[in-house]
Amino acid sequence: MHDYNQLMHKLLILTSDKDEYKRMIESAQLPDLEIITETAECDIVLGEPKAIWDALPRLHQPKWIQSIYAGVEPLVDPTQRRDYILTNARGVFGELMSEYVFGYLLFLEKKMLERIQVQQSRKWQRSESGLLRGKTIGLLGVGSIGAHLAGTAKHFGMNVVGYTRGSEISSQVDRYYHPSSQPSPNGRWSLLEFAKGLDYFVSVLPRTQETNKLVDEALLNTLPDHTVFINVGRGNSVDEPALVKALNEGKLAAAVLDVFDREPLPAEHPFWNTPNLYMTFHTSAISYPEDITKLFIENYHLFIKGKPLKYVVGFERGY
Amino acid sequence: MHDYNQLMHKLLILTSDKDEYKRMIESAQLPDLEIITETAECDIVLGEPKAIWDALPRLHQPKWIQSIYAGVEPLVDPTQRRDYILTNARGVFGELMSEYVFGYLLFLEKKMLERIQVQQSRKWQRSESGLLRGKTIGLLGVGSIGAHLAGTAKHFGMNVVGYTRGSEISSQVDRYYHPSSQPSPNGRWSLLEFAKGLDYFVSVLPRTQETNKLVDEALLNTLPDHTVFINVGRGNSVDEPALVKALNEGKLAAAVLDVFDREPLPAEHPFWNTPNLYMTFHTSAISYPEDITKLFIENYHLFIKGKPLKYVVGFERGY
Repeated sequence: MHDYNQLMHKLLILTSDKDEYKRMIESAQLPDLEIITETAECDIVLGEPKAIWDALPRLHQPKWIQSIYAGVEPLVDPTQRRDYILTNARGVFGELMSEYVFGYLLFLEKKMLERIQVQQSRKWQRSESGLLRGKTIGLLGVGSIGAHLAGTAKHFGMNVVGYTRGSEISSQVDRYYHPSSQPSPNGRWSLLEFAKGLDYFVSVLPRTQETNKLVDEALLNTLPDHTVFINVGRGNSVDEPALVKALNEGKLAAAVLDVFDREPLPAEHPFWNTPNLYMTFHTSAISYPEDITKLFIENYHLFIKGKPLKYVVGFERGY
Repeated sequence: MHDYNQLMHKLLILTSDKDEYKRMIESAQLPDLEIITETAECDIVLGEPKAIWDALPRLHQPKWIQSIYAGVEPLVDPTQRRDYILTNARGVFGELMSEYVFGYLLFLEKKMLERIQVQQSRKWQRSESGLLRGKTIGLLGVGSIGAHLAGTAKHFGMNVVGYTRGSEISSQVDRYYHPSSQPSPNGRWSLLEFAKGLDYFVSVLPRTQETNKLVDEALLNTLPDHTVFINVGRGNSVDEPALVKALNEGKLAAAVLDVFDREPLPAEHPFWNTPNLYMTFHTSAISYPEDITKLFIENYHLFIKGKPLKYVVGFERGY
């Protein structure tokens, strides 16, 4: 039983899928919740970080803001207000990312393009192709997405190594590497150790100051030449000219990029002319209203009970 | 301790990878086993069914023959001798088949070819793509390969239905269908019921009299138009002209075929000109000597103890 005399919570929805979210949240009949369109009056916001960033100065007393994305860069900018609890979308993208990452790994291992060409040449040619089984995948970042990728890698019989600041949340990672406190030429000894012997190298890092250009020339040179690199995190983690160079020089087998330092990718960017590079345009994990609504409902129940919310963003940490 | 006075077993290896098998089996130092090259003298044969079929009339007293493939069609032909125990390769192909099947499903769902075209047109275009999650896969045949496919489908959050003669060996299949004993127009009521509502339809059936042309026009018409059909079993299960018709008329989204009624596929076969058809040439699951040697060693230990072997083929059943 809830108290009908209690103040109603006022939810503002700021996404392009507003109507779908409204319909789904209304049909959940959450207690004491009213969906409003008057920006200033809300105490709860659900939406896209950029749209929330636009509205932020006009909000009187926001208490809780739920991002529908994992990345919340505009909202953790140090010039922005931080007088509310920010939660992001987590736990829902792991399975989507697994489909993308292992889809592209299998596409490359099974040589699907070459096989299409063989078929077009009308030849019965029993070309051999590769296996995921027995390969080693390196995960740069092991949060909820990295942990899910580790589980899929294990399902396919792979070895899994992970590089994280310090956490070891997934038991499916066979070996963890962390930033070294040992003196080393560039302070990144353990990152280079991690990169040695990888067959696949997948970054799921968020955009922070600390992730800037972690994937640089030294790291790309350390990876074996047959390595496939996939970036489904954020583009800032890659030294893009170094990646162009590595691909042009055959120091990587292929790269699959869903994210870029500047998005949309500028028309004059060398990536458009780089060999063995497959690009998709920030679509590896779509934010599906049904996923995010579930997460919002779960957090709303915690919110009205005054309990700690799930997936709270650390403003300083940046994710 | 084994008895050194005991008769040595004599193994004949009949594969194109003979040297690799010899090296791996010798390094396992199996008791009382000698690898011979004199065909007639062997009591054990390890090899490819076709090569064994060639040698069969010349063997004096074969006791156990281990096929390195799953399909053993030449050896179960009713005109052939059956005075030995035939075992085939099972349990080793499931993970290879999963890589192939889910690789192609992801290739199609993620619209990889269209995305390559978008990239080539130098457009930043955030096209949406599909998901495995929530889709329904129908497995035609649920033996050890089908069971493995069911596990991978479950990992990706899919619904799994299976059609088998009677067995229900995998608990990861949500619903089983079996041949109906009810009177129905074509005696195949339950197969057509099974086909309704599938997003993906994967045949892993062996070649037997009973699997001939199970995938016919009625079945193809029952599948929804958006269904992807994959055949990694044997080609005889498909009415090939009906499949050409279905693909030409858009009654299937796509088909991926690794096996054909006649192999190599004849040069004049209409498949070469059929739209939305992806063909590979009997390479979905390669027989790797390291996998098969493990299986041979396991069976050899059972053999010398007089215990029942694993993966015994039923000559009448045909697999």
